[in-house]
Amino acid sequence: MELISVNDAHDIIDHQRRDFGVERIPTVAALGRTLAEDVRADRDLPPFDRVTMDGIAICFKKARLSEAFHLQATQAAGEPPCILQSADQCIEVMTGAVLPVGTDTVVPYEWLQIESQLVHILTPAKVIESQNIHFKGKDARQHDLLIKMDTPVTASVIQVLAAVGKRDVLVYKLPKVILLSTGDELVDIADVPKDYQIRRSSNYALVAQLQQYGINTVQKHLVDEETIIQQAIADALQAYDIVLLTGGVSKGKFDFIPFALEQAGVQNLFHGVRQRPGKPFWFGVHPAGALVFAFPGNPVSTQLCVQRYLLPWLQAHVGRKPVVMRYAKLREEVTFEPALDYFLQVTLATDDQGQTWATPCRGNGSGDFANLIHADAFLALPAAQSAFKTGDVFPYWLIHS
Amino acid sequence: MELISVNDAHDIIDHQRRDFGVERIPTVAALGRTLAEDVRADRDLPPFDRVTMDGIAICFKKARLSEAFHLQATQAAGEPPCILQSADQCIEVMTGAVLPVGTDTVVPYEWLQIESQLVHILTPAKVIESQNIHFKGKDARQHDLLIKMDTPVTASVIQVLAAVGKRDVLVYKLPKVILLSTGDELVDIADVPKDYQIRRSSNYALVAQLQQYGINTVQKHLVDEETIIQQAIADALQAYDIVLLTGGVSKGKFDFIPFALEQAGVQNLFHGVRQRPGKPFWFGVHPAGALVFAFPGNPVSTQLCVQRYLLPWLQAHVGRKPVVMRYAKLREEVTFEPALDYFLQVTLATDDQGQTWATPCRGNGSGDFANLIHADAFLALPAAQSAFKTGDVFPYWLIHS
Repeated sequence: MELISVNDAHDIIDHQRRDFGVERIPTVAALGRTLAEDVRADRDLPPFDRVTMDGIAICFKKARLSEAFHLQATQAAGEPPCILQSADQCIEVMTGAVLPVGTDTVVPYEWLQIESQLVHILTPAKVIESQNIHFKGKDARQHDLLIKMDTPVTASVIQVLAAVGKRDVLVYKLPKVILLSTGDELVDIADVPKDYQIRRSSNYALVAQLQQYGINTVQKHLVDEETIIQQAIADALQAYDIVLLTGGVSKGKFDFIPFALEQAGVQNLFHGVRQRPGKPFWFGVHPAGALVFAFPGNPVSTQLCVQRYLLPWLQAHVGRKPVVMRYAKLREEVTFEPALDYFLQVTLATDDQGQTWATPCRGNGSGDFANLIHADAFLALPAAQSAFKTGDVFPYWLIHS
Repeated sequence: MELISVNDAHDIIDHQRRDFGVERIPTVAALGRTLAEDVRADRDLPPFDRVTMDGIAICFKKARLSEAFHLQATQAAGEPPCILQSADQCIEVMTGAVLPVGTDTVVPYEWLQIESQLVHILTPAKVIESQNIHFKGKDARQHDLLIKMDTPVTASVIQVLAAVGKRDVLVYKLPKVILLSTGDELVDIADVPKDYQIRRSSNYALVAQLQQYGINTVQKHLVDEETIIQQAIADALQAYDIVLLTGGVSKGKFDFIPFALEQAGVQNLFHGVRQRPGKPFWFGVHPAGALVFAFPGNPVSTQLCVQRYLLPWLQAHVGRKPVVMRYAKLREEVTFEPALDYFLQVTLATDDQGQTWATPCRGNGSGDFANLIHADAFLALPAAQSAFKTGDVFPYWLIHS
């Protein structure tokens, strides 16, 4: 199969839309999820004329500000409103309290002299009618839309949900994801590898990345044996929305994955992208709906494919938001000859003018996973160029921890 | 007590250093934590000369590239190394396999013509000695430092931990945090508030923010009664590293918090910061070690204090990294007269040159928490100025979801 361009690969994946449904969950457990319902004000916001400073409430319209006020009562937060008896009286008010009936203005303690039950305003000329009151309905009216569905649930969103009394909230369901890793050279984290073996590690990175979307990825390691791989793939396609594979997609003799996937009825939409790293990336769909991302075995290649293709797709589905393109200026010259899009590992820094800069931190190729610790992003250098100058601007793809 | 500047408040808090100790936890549960040990290579990386392309391995030094090679054997990944019998032979090799003994170069399938057991190299002139091999120790030598202690555990770090066989890892312990909210006007999320009451909401936002540091915050709501507040504070100071309070720190009659804290032996280090929002912010330390952050009751004020003071402190302790200052250009003119640092709610956007811009999205004051949903950050406009022009650059504090 022909190699395709990075943009075509992106579009083919982006074109695959899935609906995983919705579920109602406790608001306190909703951080990081995405709203599947509009959130409206259950009453006005604020729900009453709310005092915003500690001091006294008076009736500005009728009062004589230069004369003393008699302290009539104290209006605490959380208590029903007092009623002002006459314009020469005042009510002591606390922040958060309802404005007493018959008053229209709050004068803070700092402007007052209080002696026994008599209150003098020290600076009567400064007092402005209606000051220090957050009026009923100023922020929103009852039934107003406060948060649109498809909004990600942040701490601020949880605050609003709590304020309008939503103990539970409707969010989009997360896809069910399984990760099948292959490669007979790979042993478990707890094993001591032989000289020609290494430990599995890409799978742990992948699981951690999906964990940040709230997804609990099931993982299985498969020995490089055709029948075992075929059975595992067939099972996975039945039970999961997304099947991730690592390894076994290049042209080696024991790279059964593409064959096994096609045997299982998965339609291959591309195999091979004009990019480095991650050229052998394989993508397909099963008629029953599952998406299959088969990543190369090299850890850096897998990482690039995850950041460039899988997470943007998840972002569009789980996060309900297209990925926002971000750009940085190259801090030093780079040369890359092959006719491939080159995803260069970079660190990012923003200067004191708000300008983002990308500094290359190359590793030793796609096997050098230790280098990924230092990189913040992959800078996307297009295939059409081979020399990239300091100060040139390119899009980047954050390496989501 | 005198109001202090934002920088002084920051420095006073920053000066309070605490050591919460370390703990060993499973690597797969370590995402978001911070390493409390150096991570070294348990053996060379790669641990063997590793084939990086599927094809054939030959002995470049002795072979005649223009002549046919006899296919001697197949070297799969995960198998002990074959031994090349003679220079006119070759061994078929798979990506990830150990390089066969006696070979020094890998020629990929794309450059080959294979017929029965005879292999011709189509482009012998292109072959370079040592190509397509990731040599033993190229990325790191055994015992080399791979990751320094104090590094945050990202997916890439988990990958390295897995690769070197660390099933468990030493990380810094998280502080124990309790949140005491006060305010008799506040009712529970599940309750229907009376006309002059509102539901608690700031506490849910705070808990969600700390959740992102892996901290499970205990929360309690207290009625505005002196003895109850005093007992709760005394209990909290014994059992927790950080005591957060919301409400009750301004000058109102029922603002018992500052008095109750001092009664409990907490030393007040400041009360009141020259900033809007969040002016009444109170901070102190208990002789036994606990830090006390008492935030104003207004939700936006609490948010500002959390983002500007609490999270940077946590970042320095839990994350072991000082906060990196970030800057953005103001997209439109802003005027702010009071002699206070003004933390303006803004949305952030980066243009296609990598320049970050801040667009004001003001709300209706510090009670308007619904507006926080739209803001990405607080832009810090200094007290010394009152007019802020389009294109001027200021630091910002991200509103961590």
